[in-house]
Amino acid sequence: MAKMDLTPMLKPRSVAIIGASRDPGKVGHVILQNYLNAGYSGRIYAVNKNATEVMGIKCYESVLKIKDTIDLAVIAIPAKFVPETLEECGKARVKTTIVVSGGFAEIGNVDLQEQLKSIADKYNMPTLGPNCLGVMDPRSRIDTLFLPTYKLSRPQVGGVSFLCQSGAVGSTVLDLIAGEGFGLSKFISYGNAAQVDEVDLLNFLADDPDTKVIIMYIEGIKRGRAFIETARRVTRKKPVIVLKGGRTSAGQAAAHSHTAALAGSYEDHEAVFRQFGFTIAEDISDMLNYAKIFNSEPFPKGNRVGIITNGGGIGVLASDEIGMSGTLKLAEISDKSKTTLRRNLPPLVNIRNPLDLAGDAGSQRYEEALSVFNSDDSIDSILAICLFQTPGADSSVAAKLINFKEKSEKPLIVLSIGADYTRMHKIMMESSGLPVYDSPYAAVHSLSQLLKYAEYRKNAPN
Amino acid sequence: MAKMDLTPMLKPRSVAIIGASRDPGKVGHVILQNYLNAGYSGRIYAVNKNATEVMGIKCYESVLKIKDTIDLAVIAIPAKFVPETLEECGKARVKTTIVVSGGFAEIGNVDLQEQLKSIADKYNMPTLGPNCLGVMDPRSRIDTLFLPTYKLSRPQVGGVSFLCQSGAVGSTVLDLIAGEGFGLSKFISYGNAAQVDEVDLLNFLADDPDTKVIIMYIEGIKRGRAFIETARRVTRKKPVIVLKGGRTSAGQAAAHSHTAALAGSYEDHEAVFRQFGFTIAEDISDMLNYAKIFNSEPFPKGNRVGIITNGGGIGVLASDEIGMSGTLKLAEISDKSKTTLRRNLPPLVNIRNPLDLAGDAGSQRYEEALSVFNSDDSIDSILAICLFQTPGADSSVAAKLINFKEKSEKPLIVLSIGADYTRMHKIMMESSGLPVYDSPYAAVHSLSQLLKYAEYRKNAPN
Repeated sequence: MAKMDLTPMLKPRSVAIIGASRDPGKVGHVILQNYLNAGYSGRIYAVNKNATEVMGIKCYESVLKIKDTIDLAVIAIPAKFVPETLEECGKARVKTTIVVSGGFAEIGNVDLQEQLKSIADKYNMPTLGPNCLGVMDPRSRIDTLFLPTYKLSRPQVGGVSFLCQSGAVGSTVLDLIAGEGFGLSKFISYGNAAQVDEVDLLNFLADDPDTKVIIMYIEGIKRGRAFIETARRVTRKKPVIVLKGGRTSAGQAAAHSHTAALAGSYEDHEAVFRQFGFTIAEDISDMLNYAKIFNSEPFPKGNRVGIITNGGGIGVLASDEIGMSGTLKLAEISDKSKTTLRRNLPPLVNIRNPLDLAGDAGSQRYEEALSVFNSDDSIDSILAICLFQTPGADSSVAAKLINFKEKSEKPLIVLSIGADYTRMHKIMMESSGLPVYDSPYAAVHSLSQLLKYAEYRKNAPN
Repeated sequence: MAKMDLTPMLKPRSVAIIGASRDPGKVGHVILQNYLNAGYSGRIYAVNKNATEVMGIKCYESVLKIKDTIDLAVIAIPAKFVPETLEECGKARVKTTIVVSGGFAEIGNVDLQEQLKSIADKYNMPTLGPNCLGVMDPRSRIDTLFLPTYKLSRPQVGGVSFLCQSGAVGSTVLDLIAGEGFGLSKFISYGNAAQVDEVDLLNFLADDPDTKVIIMYIEGIKRGRAFIETARRVTRKKPVIVLKGGRTSAGQAAAHSHTAALAGSYEDHEAVFRQFGFTIAEDISDMLNYAKIFNSEPFPKGNRVGIITNGGGIGVLASDEIGMSGTLKLAEISDKSKTTLRRNLPPLVNIRNPLDLAGDAGSQRYEEALSVFNSDDSIDSILAICLFQTPGADSSVAAKLINFKEKSEKPLIVLSIGADYTRMHKIMMESSGLPVYDSPYAAVHSLSQLLKYAEYRKNAPN
């Protein structure tokens, strides 16, 4: 199959919800309700053989009865009825479908899943799933998730798209993304990948102008060669961060019973990921940490990091992480910069890197240090540690960092660790596009991944 | 010097604050205010040459003028005046002192620091610091921190004590501990360790009945042999989790300018830590994650973990972490347990480990799985994954886990990842003594550290 156009799935002008139910315990009920709540402005149709009306909307007996072009049909009915319904969608010239229902290859029903795939292929009708959560796009206000909003916060509009084979990983990470400043472009949960798979999805997102960064959780890759070709193409355009489930034999056995993924050895996967410029995440937190820096920061010109801090010990720990990163190193501050800093900072500040401004440092010392580090050519990126527990730090330091961010052409990231008062400032800074990290490891490793990808892009032919 | 009695420092019946100031910008002002706010019930004296009254309290010209036995003097005055003041404390038979002031070895004033140490030794007067935050003990309501409470939340009473060489690491971690369920026994920030050092402090905490777990951040160890003897003694009584600043040459250089620590190679330190049963943390988050499980869980009998989940993908990731841990493995569920589970769980649940109860699992399925896993001798510890985004999970599942915790004799930990709705349940469970983790890595590695320490304790002669 050639490159799939998934636009009707993600920007549909009309949606049919097949299995829309009056029973609040049913998946089809929650999906319809979320559509109505999300403020989707397209045309919505409910399909249910056993009802004439759901939540005030007329119910059609079959998608064939709808006298409108349907861009997307969301199918949430028992597995055994899916093939027949999918046939009807094909006959009705529905452009794309999402099969939310489980009960296919993941529990051994391989034939049923094959049937689903051949119907989708026959009608040339891109079909996502089965056994998936579907899609969310805050721009088009498409939201097929059958999870109520009080349980799962919905992210704001942004530049990060998230491909996820697992519904559980998908929903938890989505919930976490809702708390991050970077926002969501598209969420696509593709489950068993009977037809539409990671290759199709990556290809689509590679050319999606709203997607700046792609993060993905996968358990298995079905089309190895096609995946490699796609990987090569997409990572030359935008970063892809991948977390693989099934990296050990224990995890592989679990993955097989989960999405029926036939995982090859992780070493093979990892080698391919690295060769084609993927950024590898080891944990869910890595995915979000890396997405944050890729979303907002320019590429560093080199590996030399300047650290500004108002707490010595956290400066030590960040230096350790740089020493252990294998990629970054502490910058040597130029003599000219040293002279300026010595002149403008109080005598108790030891002029070295990390530059410890001391616990009583306020916005003035930060401004001085930031502007010297910014114009020093021997510093490629800046890690500003701001501990809001200290006597000198307050919102004016956060404001200074935000202000400075707007003029800086170097990567600038912030490390702030703490509870409520810190969290308030984290939100303040992140909503202004400044990535804020909560541990030396997270901050330094994210910067290290940005550098690695920058080097990949420099060396990769365009 | 023999074993120091630090009781007067941490449970003082009378405190003198030297440098108590009327100027809210001064350290001595914040310290006195925090004392008054914390509800400390002992006798408080303010000492300040230049005032007769501070915050409604009479001011003494010198500690020598106070006609009372002083258990603790907190000194917050410029460095150059410290020796003279310390002499006065000695003459006044003050039992212990804390020198909060900086300006000693960390900026090259080695002689001044030596002077301080010899005065403290001369009067046999345990002296903490200089260049430190001092101490906090929520039981005695001692709080010498010069950081306002709106910036730094104060932890509740609990079983974890925290020794910290760095003020910045100390205050940030303390702020994080305030958000954890385990609570604080004692916080001791000891800065340059001129006299009282990590050996004295570890010795004291080893015998402190309120301390169940010790966490520590250190940059250098001054008395190697004594440290080893103390380490051997303390880890046979209670767990010690250590994070070392200066693990790389970059970090060591930073540490030297911070607390004047002369760090040996980290490899040497690490070998000692491991040999004597310390638990090594690589990051601040590790310290808290490990403290949590050590504080509440019994030792596992072996390395076999049973996983219960309501989300397949997170079960896969947790299995991967177990596969990579080098210590733990997935338990083989016994045939008897399999039969019971097959009988009592719905047919869609695949009876294997991880046991995926599916997204619609509620408290009944959790109860069934927990009680079977608990009575199965082939399972040593239980990791319960509960994703509150799923349709079936709600507060009744959290209540079931809490309920079950009370009867279980195996380690039981929970993994829940997400935003507000999840956080609410995390607080609910943690306040009932159930450790909750927010990533597969954190959960599995914490369990792995508990097992390692359990094995150390089993093999160490008592």
